[in-house]
Amino acid sequence: MSLNIAVLGAGRIGQVHAAAVASVPNANLVAVSDPVDAAAEMVSEQYGASIRTIADIHDATDVDGVIICTPTDTHADLIDLFARAGKAIFCEKPIDLDVARVQSSLEVVSENSTTLMVGFNRRFDPDFNALKTAIEEGRVGDVEMVTITSRDPGPPPYGYIERSGGIFRDMTIHDFDIARWLLDEEVESVFAAGSVLVDSGIGARGDFDSVNVIMKTSSGRQAAITNSRRAVYGYDQRIEVHGSSGAVSAQNQHEARIELADASGFHRPPLMNFFMNRYTAAYAAEIAAFVDAVESGTQPPTTGDDGLMALVLAEAAVRSTAEARAVNVAEILG
Amino acid sequence: MSLNIAVLGAGRIGQVHAAAVASVPNANLVAVSDPVDAAAEMVSEQYGASIRTIADIHDATDVDGVIICTPTDTHADLIDLFARAGKAIFCEKPIDLDVARVQSSLEVVSENSTTLMVGFNRRFDPDFNALKTAIEEGRVGDVEMVTITSRDPGPPPYGYIERSGGIFRDMTIHDFDIARWLLDEEVESVFAAGSVLVDSGIGARGDFDSVNVIMKTSSGRQAAITNSRRAVYGYDQRIEVHGSSGAVSAQNQHEARIELADASGFHRPPLMNFFMNRYTAAYAAEIAAFVDAVESGTQPPTTGDDGLMALVLAEAAVRSTAEARAVNVAEILG
Amino acid sequence: MSLNIAVLGAGRIGQVHAAAVASVPNANLVAVSDPVDAAAEMVSEQYGASIRTIADIHDATDVDGVIICTPTDTHADLIDLFARAGKAIFCEKPIDLDVARVQSSLEVVSENSTTLMVGFNRRFDPDFNALKTAIEEGRVGDVEMVTITSRDPGPPPYGYIERSGGIFRDMTIHDFDIARWLLDEEVESVFAAGSVLVDSGIGARGDFDSVNVIMKTSSGRQAAITNSRRAVYGYDQRIEVHGSSGAVSAQNQHEARIELADASGFHRPPLMNFFMNRYTAAYAAEIAAFVDAVESGTQPPTTGDDGLMALVLAEAAVRSTAEARAVNVAEILG
Amino acid sequence: MSLNIAVLGAGRIGQVHAAAVASVPNANLVAVSDPVDAAAEMVSEQYGASIRTIADIHDATDVDGVIICTPTDTHADLIDLFARAGKAIFCEKPIDLDVARVQSSLEVVSENSTTLMVGFNRRFDPDFNALKTAIEEGRVGDVEMVTITSRDPGPPPYGYIERSGGIFRDMTIHDFDIARWLLDEEVESVFAAGSVLVDSGIGARGDFDSVNVIMKTSSGRQAAITNSRRAVYGYDQRIEVHGSSGAVSAQNQHEARIELADASGFHRPPLMNFFMNRYTAAYAAEIAAFVDAVESGTQPPTTGDDGLMALVLAEAAVRSTAEARAVNVAEILG
Repeated sequence: MSLNIAVLGAGRIGQVHAAAVASVPNANLVAVSDPVDAAAEMVSEQYGASIRTIADIHDATDVDGVIICTPTDTHADLIDLFARAGKAIFCEKPIDLDVARVQSSLEVVSENSTTLMVGFNRRFDPDFNALKTAIEEGRVGDVEMVTITSRDPGPPPYGYIERSGGIFRDMTIHDFDIARWLLDEEVESVFAAGSVLVDSGIGARGDFDSVNVIMKTSSGRQAAITNSRRAVYGYDQRIEVHGSSGAVSAQNQHEARIELADASGFHRPPLMNFFMNRYTAAYAAEIAAFVDAVESGTQPPTTGDDGLMALVLAEAAVRSTAEARAVNVAEILG
Repeated sequence: MSLNIAVLGAGRIGQVHAAAVASVPNANLVAVSDPVDAAAEMVSEQYGASIRTIADIHDATDVDGVIICTPTDTHADLIDLFARAGKAIFCEKPIDLDVARVQSSLEVVSENSTTLMVGFNRRFDPDFNALKTAIEEGRVGDVEMVTITSRDPGPPPYGYIERSGGIFRDMTIHDFDIARWLLDEEVESVFAAGSVLVDSGIGARGDFDSVNVIMKTSSGRQAAITNSRRAVYGYDQRIEVHGSSGAVSAQNQHEARIELADASGFHRPPLMNFFMNRYTAAYAAEIAAFVDAVESGTQPPTTGDDGLMALVLAEAAVRSTAEARAVNVAEILG
Repeated sequence: MSLNIAVLGAGRIGQVHAAAVASVPNANLVAVSDPVDAAAEMVSEQYGASIRTIADIHDATDVDGVIICTPTDTHADLIDLFARAGKAIFCEKPIDLDVARVQSSLEVVSENSTTLMVGFNRRFDPDFNALKTAIEEGRVGDVEMVTITSRDPGPPPYGYIERSGGIFRDMTIHDFDIARWLLDEEVESVFAAGSVLVDSGIGARGDFDSVNVIMKTSSGRQAAITNSRRAVYGYDQRIEVHGSSGAVSAQNQHEARIELADASGFHRPPLMNFFMNRYTAAYAAEIAAFVDAVESGTQPPTTGDDGLMALVLAEAAVRSTAEARAVNVAEILG
Repeated sequence: MSLNIAVLGAGRIGQVHAAAVASVPNANLVAVSDPVDAAAEMVSEQYGASIRTIADIHDATDVDGVIICTPTDTHADLIDLFARAGKAIFCEKPIDLDVARVQSSLEVVSENSTTLMVGFNRRFDPDFNALKTAIEEGRVGDVEMVTITSRDPGPPPYGYIERSGGIFRDMTIHDFDIARWLLDEEVESVFAAGSVLVDSGIGARGDFDSVNVIMKTSSGRQAAITNSRRAVYGYDQRIEVHGSSGAVSAQNQHEARIELADASGFHRPPLMNFFMNRYTAAYAAEIAAFVDAVESGTQPPTTGDDGLMALVLAEAAVRSTAEARAVNVAEILG
């Protein structure tokens, strides 16, 4: 059996997912929708998908599932729409910037028993998976401390910053999800410190560009996250897990595995500079996991609840920076 | 414009090349030929290529080029056949185990002005390319010493050994080619030492499993190669180039970029264990380069002469082990 | 000229400093004092220092300076005593566990214009110095984020824990000092999270064994510290500084620079397991710097104020864990 | 008991050994001899050794052993002299540049049952020792291939080159010894290739500056050595041993364990640039081993035979370059 999929939104991330669908043997990209004709046409030509409206895709009998890559403020409505249409849904993170709105969508999904998978691509990175496997095999003993370093090569445009919901909801949200995945225990409290060190224009828009976060679970496990919107040496993505009988870390990916030695020392190339190159394998594995979950009728590895909880941690972080105190997750969930 | 390609031989390496053709935008896999029906059918189904005889492919007007992946002893005849048919040819190394036979095929290619590219996949590895680029940019100054470490995870079956022409023609041949590429100057003399340390069954078949080679060019540049048929930690593939103002090295690829620390120390995974995984990107880039060369009417990056010269070095190495002396390339070329 | 030095306290750290004095060309170890005869005799015999009482050393005209290695609760009194005696003073951290007591000692030092150097050995580590030099040379641009990982091989005995003043005053205090040194700007606020994950006996004594700290300066620079009382792979001591145009890190020291590869992967030895081995070179450089400061009449590189401020940060961290909020340094300094 | 030692020759290497003697608890440096007064005085003052003539040292009843650091052409005569005087002898490599002269000295040593240790400092390097220990523990299985990379930061003065006996007897001799140590089996044949790539002035003096060597033992084990008189990135000293169930390597030592990341990539400092810094610990351990051997009456770890055999391999390498063939060790030993 093969899953027929439509991609909603043919922008940068929509193209990534279309390519991912094409790489999965038991999935077909049958339709694409985008208000920008050129974008839809590009995907249509490259992958042989027909261009349709969202309404047509909703009504289509030849579409089993949709991948939502439209602007964030449309995600929740589209989830509601397609959940009621009985179609499997893969939605890019975040479901919505508002916790209550996310919760109401998850109810619709639940009522309609639809498959909803939220796009946390990093969980599917081969190196991060090898790290997770080492933990599951007991090679570090009990997890005690998770440390995540995540720095973008450079800040996005101001327009993106303004609509992003802020660095915690836009960028740290990936690290919140990774931390939950590796702590293997729900976070109880969040402390966050934000600074504007990279670009004062980001501060002028009410956002931070440099943050540190500490989280604690009920048993005392801790996670520390450090983020910056700019790392001149490339896309810095590292994870370290410290446990009772060992530690495991995942290293960065350089542009090439070469080292040059000269009179000034030893030199390696910068890091892969763009999230799509860095996480190419992860995006493909992510869509393959979605297709597998739908076809086997099992729970997808990243659920709507995962999307909700990462947003809740972001919300707690925002409040923590405003009030200079640790914020309990319970305060946000209400 | 798009190049129509037929794959001759649908075994392990034929399948690799079929996949590579599928990944190149301006190439189509139109036909496949293999005496084993199941093999041909597998490629046919996966890539939509029609199953044909070699004679049909020879006569076909819809085939612009062939990729020769048949047994070694058929390579030279197929090159002659398709060169005379005016089709572009990509041939897996080696062209033949006999220097004179290679030379006669190269004459046929030359008389018919056909494109012939010989499959030295390693030249197309992204890391080795980054190393070569660093040299070309002058970052090590004048090249003085090339050091190549190349060890297989484990020895091939005895049957393979018997037909292989011996370790120098079968395994070291890749390193001979890389050395020529990096020395950027023809080799003048070859010394080789061979031992049987891995498996006495290999020795019983008149072959070595562990060898070291030293080569010298006319200006005194040197290359050292070390080979083993068995490395328990995986597929060991390293290059180091020492020059007048620096050095550059290409490192191995591990199964994952993680490190585990425990009471006994720090542990990284073994190396990628199979040449097809290790060189996936190289195989794709190699076929892309073939297609580009044919379409642009330019010289392919690895020519028939490269195939000849690597074989000549192998021949010199064989003679060197027999006579315990440095053998001049001129003795082999006659 | 050569400086005559007495060591007060001939326990583990006293022996380290006695050896350091012996390694400095322009210093002599002339006297040692310890209530435990065997300890004093060992140092006396090894370095040819006479055994004396503290009162004798106080009165001695052949003693220019003292190195205080006695129990923490005697440090401040000894500083007062020897400051008034006009002798140069090197005191192991901390001066006292109480901020006000430290302040009163610093006043005595100031009134008597004595040289007081506080023992923050890590600042003198060759690798950390190379990191600091890179920052001073502008190679990372403006410092934005300092990240310090500091984990002991294993927890000290309960008796030590009970008298230590807690993990922040005993262990993190080194990292507080390193953070101040690298931020090059005073810390304004401190948030700390403490857990008991290693040994519940430590929790039973009112202490933590696993902590994370975030600090912020007035301009928004941040430092993050992660500590554990136990790392099974050795003494984990790493620093990372992220700046506007680069980043610099200092790596761990393994027992040997070898790597073993076998069927299960690649293996390096554990980290140097004991602070005295790890920081041998640092201890020698530290005492050399003390001697240089006294002989040249200049400010020592780690002053009484550095000792005070590190303790103030520890105090703020203690209060932060109790109140689950960021604590301003001004609250502690009063 | 404590061994009284005299150092013959107070030049650069003599000073290194004097410092080493001072660092060994059960050894005293009692005398020093050097025709250059200033050199002898420097060692005398720093370590409290009396300045004496070689004749006085020969007759002295308070001297148990000598360390010979005089010019190479005096080594053999001094060995003969002090062997007959019944004193223990540590002699810097080489004993002599002539194999027969070495053999006659070894006979004198044998007749007088004197302890003779030859200075192959690298065997005492902590990292190389850890590598050797891993082999002895069976962690690589049977040793098959030893690969040694040894490059000096820059060539010595022409005057040194002229008296050195050539690169094989002067520089490669260390690697010949390390290869013998790690192969754990005598070498049967040697092939060497020499080039002049670094400095034509070296070629004008009849020497090479860039060499590769392959050696084979009777069971087929192989060792490959690569040498250059110039590595702009520092003193390159690496060893790699490949075996039946694994491999082990020893890495280089950089000036500091830091890494800088900037827009052009990741940068580590050059290698330690001077053999005395690089091998400080090795020199101290070497003299400690000499003292231990004398005091315990056991065979020293590097014997006169080791000195002879390394020279024989050098001799074979010289002949190999002249005749472009593998030279059997038996041809040299006669």
